[in-house]
Amino acid sequence: MKLYDLELSGNCYKVRLFAALAGIPLEIVAVDFLGGEHKRAPLIELNPWGELPVLEDGGTVLRDSHAILVYLAAKYSGEAWLPRDAAGLAEVAQWLSTSANEVQNGPGAARLVDKFGYALDKATTLARAARILPLIDAHLARHRWLARERPTIADCAVFPYVALAPEGGVALQAYPHIRRWIGQIKELPGFVPMPGI
Amino acid sequence: MKLYDLELSGNCYKVRLFAALAGIPLEIVAVDFLGGEHKRAPLIELNPWGELPVLEDGGTVLRDSHAILVYLAAKYSGEAWLPRDAAGLAEVAQWLSTSANEVQNGPGAARLVDKFGYALDKATTLARAARILPLIDAHLARHRWLARERPTIADCAVFPYVALAPEGGVALQAYPHIRRWIGQIKELPGFVPMPGI
Repeated sequence: MKLYDLELSGNCYKVRLFAALAGIPLEIVAVDFLGGEHKRAPLIELNPWGELPVLEDGGTVLRDSHAILVYLAAKYSGEAWLPRDAAGLAEVAQWLSTSANEVQNGPGAARLVDKFGYALDKATTLARAARILPLIDAHLARHRWLARERPTIADCAVFPYVALAPEGGVALQAYPHIRRWIGQIKELPGFVPMPGI
Repeated sequence: MKLYDLELSGNCYKVRLFAALAGIPLEIVAVDFLGGEHKRAPLIELNPWGELPVLEDGGTVLRDSHAILVYLAAKYSGEAWLPRDAAGLAEVAQWLSTSANEVQNGPGAARLVDKFGYALDKATTLARAARILPLIDAHLARHRWLARERPTIADCAVFPYVALAPEGGVALQAYPHIRRWIGQIKELPGFVPMPGI
């Protein structure tokens, strides 16, 4: 099972982190991102979006970090990281949406500007971060983990770009519950870091 | 089962549409959005995000349109609209992410500017629409439906803000496969429209 990967991508790290925590072996294929390898054949045929990560498992090809988490959890980890009852599945799905939209376009995008020079409006990214981080912190004030009161792929999805927020000029000092939760994730058996975390 | 609803919201419409197609009865509770009812108690306690839709089913409360689709499909429609095998679940999840990020922040956000006067950068929303719509069109050139070659909640999620794109000044003439797919959805038994569709 191949993960087409970029070490500095938080989206790729979501997958590496979850695979490490769940003990799922992955063949990591480093992609020459600066050289545009993901925008050319053969990678662009696997993922027409021209983005990373991409997972290839036999005939199954997935292009989205959240979909890859769902796939790996459903196929290789039983119910441990992804509950399959309606309410549990939906509670996790809720955080995957938050990760794909508010976290990606808030702290995630702020980091793209500061660290990689992306031409995004920095003020908009900071405003989005300033809206979503207090909501996550308030949730974590009442819950130890994001969903189901235990570690799930919801935590793996939201963690990278929240923990990397300082690389986009977004401080986490004001969010004690987020900082506690970051600490909890770092203490999970099998945890692996990435540069900046 | 209550859906706290705004008729003109594409996110609320995703849920109304899917419930109609799958024959799931919902009690629709119209929320005074312009009056800010969703930002005050009791609604803000159900959904601290201060957004619509919100679903309440006994003790289960969900705040995100995609999570609500997952919940309703998993609880009330068997495997018909949401496959539960790893590859099928992930393929649908992939489109839920696309809906939450690229579609919401592309054609969805362009409509918010034009129709409701939201203070978003219109050029950015148009650029995002111009990136994602050709990718969806190319996918639909090779596939009749978004996932699994049959109607799923992936279609219900992506359909509203793509079909409403003209309300944000985004024409669909250049996307023949999207237009075919819109026609297919409108012909599904139980289909319900919303203003603008």
